[in-house]
Amino acid sequence: MGEFELIRRFFVPLANKAMTDQLVLGPGDDCAIQRVPEGRDLVFSVDTLVEGVHFPANYSPFCLGWRALAVATSDLAAMGATPVCFTLALTLPEAQPEWLADFAQGLAKASDNFGIALAGGDTTRGPLAVSIQVHGTVTQGSAIRRSGARPGDLVCVSGPLGAAGAALDFLGATDPGVDQQAILARYHFPEPRLVLGQQLVGRASAAIDISDGLLADLEHILEQSGVGAELDAKNIPMLPELRRIKGAAALSLALTAGDDYELCVTIAPDRYAALAPEAQVGLIIIGRIQQESGLRVTGAEMTESPAGFDHFGGSV
Amino acid sequence: MGEFELIRRFFVPLANKAMTDQLVLGPGDDCAIQRVPEGRDLVFSVDTLVEGVHFPANYSPFCLGWRALAVATSDLAAMGATPVCFTLALTLPEAQPEWLADFAQGLAKASDNFGIALAGGDTTRGPLAVSIQVHGTVTQGSAIRRSGARPGDLVCVSGPLGAAGAALDFLGATDPGVDQQAILARYHFPEPRLVLGQQLVGRASAAIDISDGLLADLEHILEQSGVGAELDAKNIPMLPELRRIKGAAALSLALTAGDDYELCVTIAPDRYAALAPEAQVGLIIIGRIQQESGLRVTGAEMTESPAGFDHFGGSV
Repeated sequence: MGEFELIRRFFVPLANKAMTDQLVLGPGDDCAIQRVPEGRDLVFSVDTLVEGVHFPANYSPFCLGWRALAVATSDLAAMGATPVCFTLALTLPEAQPEWLADFAQGLAKASDNFGIALAGGDTTRGPLAVSIQVHGTVTQGSAIRRSGARPGDLVCVSGPLGAAGAALDFLGATDPGVDQQAILARYHFPEPRLVLGQQLVGRASAAIDISDGLLADLEHILEQSGVGAELDAKNIPMLPELRRIKGAAALSLALTAGDDYELCVTIAPDRYAALAPEAQVGLIIIGRIQQESGLRVTGAEMTESPAGFDHFGGSV
Repeated sequence: MGEFELIRRFFVPLANKAMTDQLVLGPGDDCAIQRVPEGRDLVFSVDTLVEGVHFPANYSPFCLGWRALAVATSDLAAMGATPVCFTLALTLPEAQPEWLADFAQGLAKASDNFGIALAGGDTTRGPLAVSIQVHGTVTQGSAIRRSGARPGDLVCVSGPLGAAGAALDFLGATDPGVDQQAILARYHFPEPRLVLGQQLVGRASAAIDISDGLLADLEHILEQSGVGAELDAKNIPMLPELRRIKGAAALSLALTAGDDYELCVTIAPDRYAALAPEAQVGLIIIGRIQQESGLRVTGAEMTESPAGFDHFGGSV
């Protein structure tokens, strides 16, 4: 069996057409074909993870499979979209059957969990990198954008922050303690907030998924909406394990570390009050949108300034 | 200006919304949004080019921009689809303004030529690689697949073969001769056969774009259609420059070398006869589909056996 066949054997089972009748043609032709239902818009996003940059060398292929699909699918959650299918552009130095089997298994598990089927892809030889493009749909004109935040809106997040960033310190630990394990899980297995995102369609005024850190990502909403915000540091949710391990440094991680893939959402107070209880409980209020531009954090001394945050790369 | 802003400055102008009213939301949010017209299917494909594998180190960024988009768009041509938009996942070691400007210019030129607008993307730090996913549409149910070839169909190609493969020998030549320049152009600036592909919708029985070599790619049609074929080597089109430079080895290149991005098409003789003259002239008849499985080449001694062709990677 050639390497080409080997790869195909691992990935074609992921093309679970039963998962969606919208995938008219899956892997194996020049293109895949998706039928977008009448009255729906196609919503799509691509994310690349590079070895040594977005995950460490010799990272677990099972975790990489889950994580790569979760990171991409999280963008669908932020738009309030319903997942349909994805493509996989996988670059790897050699085709090792064990590595491929584990990677495909992690990908398959995430694919089942998120309800998103493999539509096609490309495998190439080169330094290890995974690029995944996810496709979803949303009722025409109703995708949640970054530009709709208005003064008076609540600023909310969908879960605890900072843990994935803290996990970078001990990703390679051979015998992590209980607290460390809880924190590592947040890095290895992010969960796109798909159900919440869909509940917020027509309700939230803006949303973004937190990949670069709360302050940096909220800034995108503020810029594109032409508003400012004030956050209360006391309300930023954090895992107790993070507070125990990091002490006073926990808040700084929660504000500036990325990789948590929770949602940051703005919503008018009356719309928040009218949410179904299960959506309300999924949103932790951390601040308010204000007319005055800029982002202010009250309620705690910052251990380091969030100003001047910049990084190489990002969405085009 | 941060590196992030630098990259955005070069690519956002490519998001030419005027090019298509189907791109509802371009770069700058969590996802892009495409509206697929009623009665049309979304057709999409991803291709990755890795430095040192698919193009040489220090390759011209302008050519890389063109080539990367052409290679991906060629898959739309093979399905008979009309291009709409694309995403760019660009991994590069550092953000050099000159390199980025040249790359963006090559990409922009190809984008204008093929009528396909940038919808979004992701830029990451790492070893140089370009992954592009193209989106097109086709009337529902009418995409040209690989599985429709029937005994008696003509086998055709859309242009001369083998030159892009021959170009690999002197990609780095500082002072290429006239013949070499003609051959290099076939490598640097492939032209997806979009107009021809669209003319063949509802007429061709199968099509594939020639990325891996005529024999290897035609084999995909034969396998998926459950048929065989006989080709007449005397009819395989080749550039005169290729014959002059490669002599007797030209045919082998035309049969087995990839990177030309012409189409290989099967079509029933009566449908071929009924084609518009401009479509007919774009198709060179090189053989026949047969009931008996296998691929036979007559009319010339092969200098090497095409059997056992395998390579690392390919479409999932």
